[in-house]
Amino acid sequence: MVRLKKDEILKKIEEPEKKILKQIEKGKNPYLEIPIRRLSNIQYSKEKRRIILGESISKRYFFNLAHIRKFVQNVEVAKIAKELVNVDKHLSLRETFYKMKRTIPNTKTNIVDDQSESNNAIEELELITGLLREQFHINANRSGFVAGNVIIKDHGDIIDWSKLGSGGWAVPSNVEDIEFKKVNAKFIIYVEKEAEWERLHEDKVWKKLNCIIVASQGQAPRGIRRLLQRLDIEYGLPVYVLTDLDPWGFYIYSVLKYSSIKLAHISKKLVIPHAKFLGMMPKDVEKYGLKKHLIKFEDKDIKRLEEIKEYSWFKNNKKWQKLFEDLKKLKGKEELAALTSKGISFISDVYIPEKLKNKDWIE
Amino acid sequence: MVRLKKDEILKKIEEPEKKILKQIEKGKNPYLEIPIRRLSNIQYSKEKRRIILGESISKRYFFNLAHIRKFVQNVEVAKIAKELVNVDKHLSLRETFYKMKRTIPNTKTNIVDDQSESNNAIEELELITGLLREQFHINANRSGFVAGNVIIKDHGDIIDWSKLGSGGWAVPSNVEDIEFKKVNAKFIIYVEKEAEWERLHEDKVWKKLNCIIVASQGQAPRGIRRLLQRLDIEYGLPVYVLTDLDPWGFYIYSVLKYSSIKLAHISKKLVIPHAKFLGMMPKDVEKYGLKKHLIKFEDKDIKRLEEIKEYSWFKNNKKWQKLFEDLKKLKGKEELAALTSKGISFISDVYIPEKLKNKDWIE
Repeated sequence: MVRLKKDEILKKIEEPEKKILKQIEKGKNPYLEIPIRRLSNIQYSKEKRRIILGESISKRYFFNLAHIRKFVQNVEVAKIAKELVNVDKHLSLRETFYKMKRTIPNTKTNIVDDQSESNNAIEELELITGLLREQFHINANRSGFVAGNVIIKDHGDIIDWSKLGSGGWAVPSNVEDIEFKKVNAKFIIYVEKEAEWERLHEDKVWKKLNCIIVASQGQAPRGIRRLLQRLDIEYGLPVYVLTDLDPWGFYIYSVLKYSSIKLAHISKKLVIPHAKFLGMMPKDVEKYGLKKHLIKFEDKDIKRLEEIKEYSWFKNNKKWQKLFEDLKKLKGKEELAALTSKGISFISDVYIPEKLKNKDWIE
Repeated sequence: MVRLKKDEILKKIEEPEKKILKQIEKGKNPYLEIPIRRLSNIQYSKEKRRIILGESISKRYFFNLAHIRKFVQNVEVAKIAKELVNVDKHLSLRETFYKMKRTIPNTKTNIVDDQSESNNAIEELELITGLLREQFHINANRSGFVAGNVIIKDHGDIIDWSKLGSGGWAVPSNVEDIEFKKVNAKFIIYVEKEAEWERLHEDKVWKKLNCIIVASQGQAPRGIRRLLQRLDIEYGLPVYVLTDLDPWGFYIYSVLKYSSIKLAHISKKLVIPHAKFLGMMPKDVEKYGLKKHLIKFEDKDIKRLEEIKEYSWFKNNKKWQKLFEDLKKLKGKEELAALTSKGISFISDVYIPEKLKNKDWIE
């Protein structure tokens, strides 16, 4: 993967700025070209196997009362991004909001009044420049940790993921500049719950199966997604996604593998092409005698299941459709934690090795 | 701090069991003695400076239809705890629930049907034995990370908190067996937000001020609280608690320092005696010109503020009462992130050093 250098990133941020200056020199009404993010311009690409943005573009003019506020926000966030890259510091979304929330001199107008405005301007800077916001130093929230036979270099420190006790390495919000020094693993297991990670870690699953184990709570934050993507693309490690048997688990897998509508514009940089669903399946409930632990569906679960069933990438996939049908018949959800009823380390000693041996996953 | 050995922990778990056996041998109706956790038996001890449990105790009998279900749960959780300590494995609350949820042979009755039942039995085992549930290997959820000039030993690994890149060490749910090898720091800064921790870490605050920086999202989980307590008690490091200016921030500080009603029975093992509130104060809003960033109070904020004002440990503290009054006049909350409006690293370069220099904290 080609990592962009500081001056390349700055150049990309400055490009729209230069265009605006040229327009002004020519006496034109300055405008920005912004790819449209409405649903009508978002689609699933079978070929690319991810959600992508279409070709539609809108123009935002400075001399247009309906446009000017957002235009100024676009320029302001580009200015902040340049500063951050130049001084080599990072801000969170919330901090960026406060930095943008300044009053325009000689007016009573703030550039932004609400974080939704600065968030939007940040996403639009991604759209305009094709950069990830991590590349211009605006970080998402972080959560999650990792263990495995991997050595990395980060900010001058050499970090061995196999020697961090029971804690593991806390994955930062921004993994763009991490260097992999040694990757001695055949695959990755991503679990949606921190408690399950502690189970796998205590049972030394990463050592026994020669893999990397990663967790965050619920939906994976961008730092984790980028880390998994880099390990997939740069080292060819497949990512096995281990979730509960419920629509929310399928969605976690879906976002990891295909991205989401909200982030369609940068899906290329976030999706994990070799993600495989290793989560609990209806037949596992049968096989391991877990029926008594089913948690009866509520209406919202069934509604969510029906929605997910219709996603293009699931719709034409017979294996997934069968799984959804089987789950509907079960009429309930099943948690990974229920495997504990079969033995403290059943998930590590039996469930995962059996599923891997039998290639019992869905893509 | 005296760390209990495996056989000492087992002995404590087995004690009630032995009492029950003796009662049976004597032909008596077996009972357990359980300290009462009702509000009437919970108080704030001025002398101990923490929330404590009173002396009232209830008896739970085996031959009593109203008692037997809970009695069996108490015995079952003790059995699981013994197993966990013996095989040296740990379970989460959720996993413990599934392990307990077995059907009593020749009946259709489960020992527990809902996690609230197993959680309660686990807390009661703490009450009965005086142990923390971490000591009998049932872990709480985890979150948070740490950086600083500290070297620890955990599960055979030597971990240097100063050499973990931008990520930091992920604090596990259970820190009971961590050994401190080197602690080269004068104090600890605990921040309630992960994004602020990244700010302090990027600005190398722990290096510049010779301290340890710790964060978790919102209320600190037990792993973090135990870690902070150990560093306070074993190494005499004061813990400066950095929160937003709002009732929820005060409550984070309050729980860290005095414990909570729910955990009154083990408050001794959780409270951080030298915690000091270094969070945003009303006068800081004035001093640093942050009024425009105030977030107007909603009714729930005012209600929460009035409740906290009445807590015994705040009620007789003039400094706290003045802060609450000043905040009421401000009519709004202020976030730490608002300091970004004064400069990207204002919090690290100005706010924290000034407050520490002027001893501008409240205890």
